[in-house]
Amino acid sequence: MTCAVFCIGTELSRGELVNTNATWLADQLTTAGFDVIENVVVPDDFEAIESTLERLGRTVKLIVTTGGLGPTTDDFTSEAVARTLGVPFVRSEEALSQIRQRFQRAGRTMSPSNEKQAYFPEDARILPNRVGSAPGFSVMIGKAIAFFLPGVPREMMQMFDAQVLPAIRGMAAHNSFQIRLQTYGVPESVVGEKLSDVERLFPGVTLGYRAHWPEIEVKVLAQGDLPAAEELCKAATTAVRERLGSAIFGDGEMTFASVVGAALRQRGETLALAESCTGGLLGAKLTAEPGASDFLLVDAVTYSNLAKTKFLGVDEEILRAHGAVSAEVAMAMAEGVRREAQASIGLAITGIAGPEGGTDAKPVGLVFIAIAAASGTRVIEKRFVGDRQQIQLFSAYAAMKMLLDGADIARQEPA
Amino acid sequence: MTCAVFCIGTELSRGELVNTNATWLADQLTTAGFDVIENVVVPDDFEAIESTLERLGRTVKLIVTTGGLGPTTDDFTSEAVARTLGVPFVRSEEALSQIRQRFQRAGRTMSPSNEKQAYFPEDARILPNRVGSAPGFSVMIGKAIAFFLPGVPREMMQMFDAQVLPAIRGMAAHNSFQIRLQTYGVPESVVGEKLSDVERLFPGVTLGYRAHWPEIEVKVLAQGDLPAAEELCKAATTAVRERLGSAIFGDGEMTFASVVGAALRQRGETLALAESCTGGLLGAKLTAEPGASDFLLVDAVTYSNLAKTKFLGVDEEILRAHGAVSAEVAMAMAEGVRREAQASIGLAITGIAGPEGGTDAKPVGLVFIAIAAASGTRVIEKRFVGDRQQIQLFSAYAAMKMLLDGADIARQEPA
Repeated sequence: MTCAVFCIGTELSRGELVNTNATWLADQLTTAGFDVIENVVVPDDFEAIESTLERLGRTVKLIVTTGGLGPTTDDFTSEAVARTLGVPFVRSEEALSQIRQRFQRAGRTMSPSNEKQAYFPEDARILPNRVGSAPGFSVMIGKAIAFFLPGVPREMMQMFDAQVLPAIRGMAAHNSFQIRLQTYGVPESVVGEKLSDVERLFPGVTLGYRAHWPEIEVKVLAQGDLPAAEELCKAATTAVRERLGSAIFGDGEMTFASVVGAALRQRGETLALAESCTGGLLGAKLTAEPGASDFLLVDAVTYSNLAKTKFLGVDEEILRAHGAVSAEVAMAMAEGVRREAQASIGLAITGIAGPEGGTDAKPVGLVFIAIAAASGTRVIEKRFVGDRQQIQLFSAYAAMKMLLDGADIARQEPA
Repeated sequence: MTCAVFCIGTELSRGELVNTNATWLADQLTTAGFDVIENVVVPDDFEAIESTLERLGRTVKLIVTTGGLGPTTDDFTSEAVARTLGVPFVRSEEALSQIRQRFQRAGRTMSPSNEKQAYFPEDARILPNRVGSAPGFSVMIGKAIAFFLPGVPREMMQMFDAQVLPAIRGMAAHNSFQIRLQTYGVPESVVGEKLSDVERLFPGVTLGYRAHWPEIEVKVLAQGDLPAAEELCKAATTAVRERLGSAIFGDGEMTFASVVGAALRQRGETLALAESCTGGLLGAKLTAEPGASDFLLVDAVTYSNLAKTKFLGVDEEILRAHGAVSAEVAMAMAEGVRREAQASIGLAITGIAGPEGGTDAKPVGLVFIAIAAASGTRVIEKRFVGDRQQIQLFSAYAAMKMLLDGADIARQEPA
């Protein structure tokens, strides 16, 4: 069952805006069992909209379109559809009253330009918009059913989920079943190599990858009727798990930070952070997940040596003898922040993220990460390769890995 | 002069990856004076590639294509082009030797699959790749000149800048001149309204907007021959500046954080931050710019009350009497972090970013920001509307605005 995603808007065709709508829709449609054979963008232009609709109406069975439903003069998708079909462009009294009510509920007066949003090609099926002012609609164009949604992502997503997906689900040539696995610690190319035989071993299964770098999501999609597709997907997922082993940290929507946070909470730990070269990135990753305040007491981002002394109680002598980027200072920072914050775990990162500040003895990419617990303190030395942002991200992830492995690790010898 | 951007790859058509290449190319081509009338994506599929090339060869004068030039079995753009043109698919000994040399220089052995990357449609002009293994090429398809570039963004961008742009510049119907202005503090819809007459007053000028929320870039593009286009652009830019006033904080590549950092450095200030509900976002914004360590001494992200007491010296009595989210605690945090870090300016943010933790008296979105300097301490109270991420971002920007306005502001009465 073929389909196309068609996004209308000069801001997209000119490259003023990244087209996240197309990506989101293509992903949703693929997951629903459709074969997305084209994503296309054209400017707000009658001829371009009409010729693209005519062409897609000849080549696919389903068209999902976004954009051009707003109140301004450059929004004329609905009128272009009426022209494509050669039908009158007519006002829907019901849609008009819904738009008017929406404005009334918000305590705002409806501007005359919003009235335009109540016009549709004759006989279109109108799709109410629960979260914005622009209703959508659907019509048949050639051999395709075509859905027209607003370009505002929040409205588009809500309407796709609530109104398009239920209407098209039965159309997919076959059903499908998908499992998402989350990995960290193995580069994307190596993930691909390790899984290179899976699609061959499990016909009907397609693997997809999405990098939220350095996390990589592996999607295992089995097409076919249920429950056979579910069984096939689960069998292939078992094979994927065998091949990736401990690189898989979770499934579904899980992030590495959420898994680390859950582990800390489950163990009843409290955490104090001291960051230097990562500039607060580790704390930001952990607190992006709801509920981080259950365990995270403080993140002291200390740039100056004085701040390391005053806020973390790092001995000036240690700083002088070893320099701020050293195993000794990392350990003193971890122990200091743990003590000051009265936390069960202290974790510290100090290093050189670059691009400036590297020397032969201490090059850009050199990073020390220390973890302090009641049982003792452990430090690791890393030499990361990459630009500033990559070194910071690698460092934050290596630190999260230490937190996940647990405070008991502090009893072990340095690796 | 019409053109199209054509991206090939199943990972794009399925929505596994956001298509930033299309956005970047469309922006570059628009700026160079071309009229981008279509951006299209198809999967790695011979028929889809061939039919799209044939169609675009009839409708545009320039096609820029990315993807499908790699060494793996699903990369066959070059062969599909040869089929489209009905010409032999032949090996270039020169390209093969360049690919081989590239592997030798990197100390790696060339795999047999890379040999495929030396095959091109007969008579194609080969475009060397200085930063990767896949050479590109150009051919005529119908009435269009078509350029084929790798899908790896870094390689694609380098080849577009070095080889495509010089070749096509003369093709643009006219030249153009562009000025970019950076704004903060006015919503995108209001920016658009304030500038609604500019395109009409200056025929030949097009305004473009790009939101790096809450910063909004305004692009003033004048098309026409130089130097007339430059004069036109500058005149329109003056009109834009008059209409947006102090909302414009810079031009070109400037970010708000870079302007704030430059102002602090120029005034010879040193800065200590104490953050609570923003979780280190303010520090992250400032340190994302090179050289922030010149002035930023510490960013103490204190979640627990104990951390506010221990790290910032906030009096337990003040916390008990007013609560952590209060003007009094914000001021004590700013003064405390300034004193402990021995900085010339202390700045503190405390508030409720949500989604949990709001009450009737202290709702989600209530934020206090305090700035402390030798001349005194000033605090502002804000009530932001939005989700957690938006409230954090608004808070960090409001704090940066206070830093930009200067420490002298501490002498003034609260606004």
